[in-house]
Amino acid sequence: MSLRAGIVVTGTEVLSGRVSDRNGPWLAERLAEEGVDLACITIVGDRPQDMRDALESMSARGLDLVLTSGGLGPTADDLTAEVVGRFQGRPMVLDEALSGRIAKIVAPLLKRWPNLDPAAIEQANRKQATIPEGATILEPVGTAPGLVVPPSNGSGPTVVVLPGPPRELQPMWGHALATEALAGTLRAATTYEQRTLRLFGIPESEIAETLRIAESAGVELDRLEVTTCLKRGEVEVVTRFEPPQADVYASFEAIVRERHADTLFSDDGSTVDEQVAGLLRTSGRTVATAESCTGGMLAARLTDLPGSSEYFLGSIVAYADEVKESLAGVPRATLEAHGAVSAEVAEALADAARERAGADVGVGITGVAGPGGGSEEKPVGLVWLSVRGGAEPITRSVNLPGGRSDIRDRAGTVAMHLLRRALSGA
Amino acid sequence: MSLRAGIVVTGTEVLSGRVSDRNGPWLAERLAEEGVDLACITIVGDRPQDMRDALESMSARGLDLVLTSGGLGPTADDLTAEVVGRFQGRPMVLDEALSGRIAKIVAPLLKRWPNLDPAAIEQANRKQATIPEGATILEPVGTAPGLVVPPSNGSGPTVVVLPGPPRELQPMWGHALATEALAGTLRAATTYEQRTLRLFGIPESEIAETLRIAESAGVELDRLEVTTCLKRGEVEVVTRFEPPQADVYASFEAIVRERHADTLFSDDGSTVDEQVAGLLRTSGRTVATAESCTGGMLAARLTDLPGSSEYFLGSIVAYADEVKESLAGVPRATLEAHGAVSAEVAEALADAARERAGADVGVGITGVAGPGGGSEEKPVGLVWLSVRGGAEPITRSVNLPGGRSDIRDRAGTVAMHLLRRALSGA
Repeated sequence: MSLRAGIVVTGTEVLSGRVSDRNGPWLAERLAEEGVDLACITIVGDRPQDMRDALESMSARGLDLVLTSGGLGPTADDLTAEVVGRFQGRPMVLDEALSGRIAKIVAPLLKRWPNLDPAAIEQANRKQATIPEGATILEPVGTAPGLVVPPSNGSGPTVVVLPGPPRELQPMWGHALATEALAGTLRAATTYEQRTLRLFGIPESEIAETLRIAESAGVELDRLEVTTCLKRGEVEVVTRFEPPQADVYASFEAIVRERHADTLFSDDGSTVDEQVAGLLRTSGRTVATAESCTGGMLAARLTDLPGSSEYFLGSIVAYADEVKESLAGVPRATLEAHGAVSAEVAEALADAARERAGADVGVGITGVAGPGGGSEEKPVGLVWLSVRGGAEPITRSVNLPGGRSDIRDRAGTVAMHLLRRALSGA
Repeated sequence: MSLRAGIVVTGTEVLSGRVSDRNGPWLAERLAEEGVDLACITIVGDRPQDMRDALESMSARGLDLVLTSGGLGPTADDLTAEVVGRFQGRPMVLDEALSGRIAKIVAPLLKRWPNLDPAAIEQANRKQATIPEGATILEPVGTAPGLVVPPSNGSGPTVVVLPGPPRELQPMWGHALATEALAGTLRAATTYEQRTLRLFGIPESEIAETLRIAESAGVELDRLEVTTCLKRGEVEVVTRFEPPQADVYASFEAIVRERHADTLFSDDGSTVDEQVAGLLRTSGRTVATAESCTGGMLAARLTDLPGSSEYFLGSIVAYADEVKESLAGVPRATLEAHGAVSAEVAEALADAARERAGADVGVGITGVAGPGGGSEEKPVGLVWLSVRGGAEPITRSVNLPGGRSDIRDRAGTVAMHLLRRALSGA
């Protein structure tokens, strides 16, 4: 039996949708690496009873481990340490030494604001240093300490209490793994294998059919945990299995490869963004973009990966038609003859990106992101893309579904796939 | 007593962190609009037992309403309708008429792929049309129908089953509200008021102190639900209260206004992005950016709002130094004398944005986003920003915390606030 875990994300700002949670997904991936089976993520507001309910329902399901994020700040609505202490049957005690260490961390940060009240700061430090008796302290990365809190009576889940800001939580997870309190719990975990296949350019129903074909061909799919999803226009097939089922997985993958040879673009977990970066890096080629409807999103996406300055040179965001002329040098005659959303303008933008930024490969994008600006001939969602300077010039249009942000995001994904094709010559 | 609800988001791809959930936050905001109190959001994988556990723990807590998202697709791992049917004590029945309507929707979509197996498509349609007996059907927005499923024995929560893709779920929520099955449940809801204050440039501990001061001054904060959070470098104070407590809230807001007059920038829920858009629109001014470390993210952010073509002209993403020279015309001497990350280059970029795109106001950004490229003098996180053409020229540097994506994102927020200042003259 595998170790089972739950994650409790706290914060009314997260529950109400004002802040999107990044910790649940991040911790989910870390748990998978440790071979821990994640049962659920529950988001609750800063209310002690709701937090307590979440802990109790996880305990009732027999989970072995619960991770919490958030609610460790200096304000009174930050209640996690206290709720977890009570849940685990441990009284709260002030750790004076910890309070002193927090004070040392906070002092230089507060220099920017010379008029703060020292008593208020002292109170905040002491609040953050009041912890359940017998908990293992995880030293602050920001100002809040984390905790590993075992149940006082030896039964029930171990609770790992982590701060809300991702840049504090992420390093602290490493510290938590190094504690005996957590490492001891994790020793019971089974290892899983996980494989990811990504396909571009087919509907999800085609993968449903492939699963049925695999089953008819005798592949014991019930020994694998296969999940499929549509993600930014790509179909992702993720399979999780225990190591003895590797042969079953191999048979399944062979069937996917055979049926979807043209559309399977990744079998090692790599994203199209990573593949494009790899192709640029290994070939020593450089890229630049000229974008209209995506407004710089493709450039932002190409510079998202560290080290992108090796191959990404720059971009012209030509949103207004006058800027398409002035900065990108698209001839007024072309704009007038074909309109801003056209194959000709996409190609002129791709050429401008190459020539004006001095790049080997240029990408041009122009489209109707909506909600306004669509016509019968050029509806919202129509996007023209062009890649020049690769193995062969590519220009094509797509009709993308969804709202403004979906269309902009999806146009970036299509551009990445065209760039991949242009760079790999495939 | 207010109506209480829970949200169950299903999908192994969401639970495992491969896809980030947008439905939970969106539905949370819609429930708040209806005066429904949200107790929790639980994310589970595509496993019937985990989904069932989530529904049961919400029922055990006495919630009146549960919304689910996802798991309505054509593949066998999409199980929501069946699990909800069993939970509500309703057998599954095939609705032939619905299956026919789905077939009509699917047919034109599949024309792109002429070689699909018609039997596979038929099976997918019938699967999606098999629903709990007595459920109210919400017509498909994509291909999957939603459902409103009351408990068969009259006790326990009403469950609203919605599809996973946000562009299907969002319009379908409106359809759900129009059904008697959901509207009847909602009639019991209390109305809440919600107010949002946003501040920029203070630590969260200062708000903690303000809350204590308000309490000492006799403001009955326990009649309000106040939550504070740090979000993209801003402090957000959201207060929810029942209408008779409006006076209590007014006293609290007055204290915040007095203590934080310099840093309070929004009291009507507007974001800095919306304020910048409003300032540009009402003044008839145009803006352009020239970006290095943010790689087009500010341009992308400025074009995120519909109608941004009214005031946003374009951007030069000058990632490589050669492009800073060629496209943005930053003199080589300036780059050599001060380095690419400097006040001088930020100003040259802001001027280039204005002049080359023909905009009234230009924003320049250059910094060290990391993880590499930092030095003792210019560490990772140092960003120089400049805004030219506003009430007065502004140039400043910030040292931003966090990893590469935090730094890039936060630099955009700082730029927005400088732009706001330059445009409002405040």
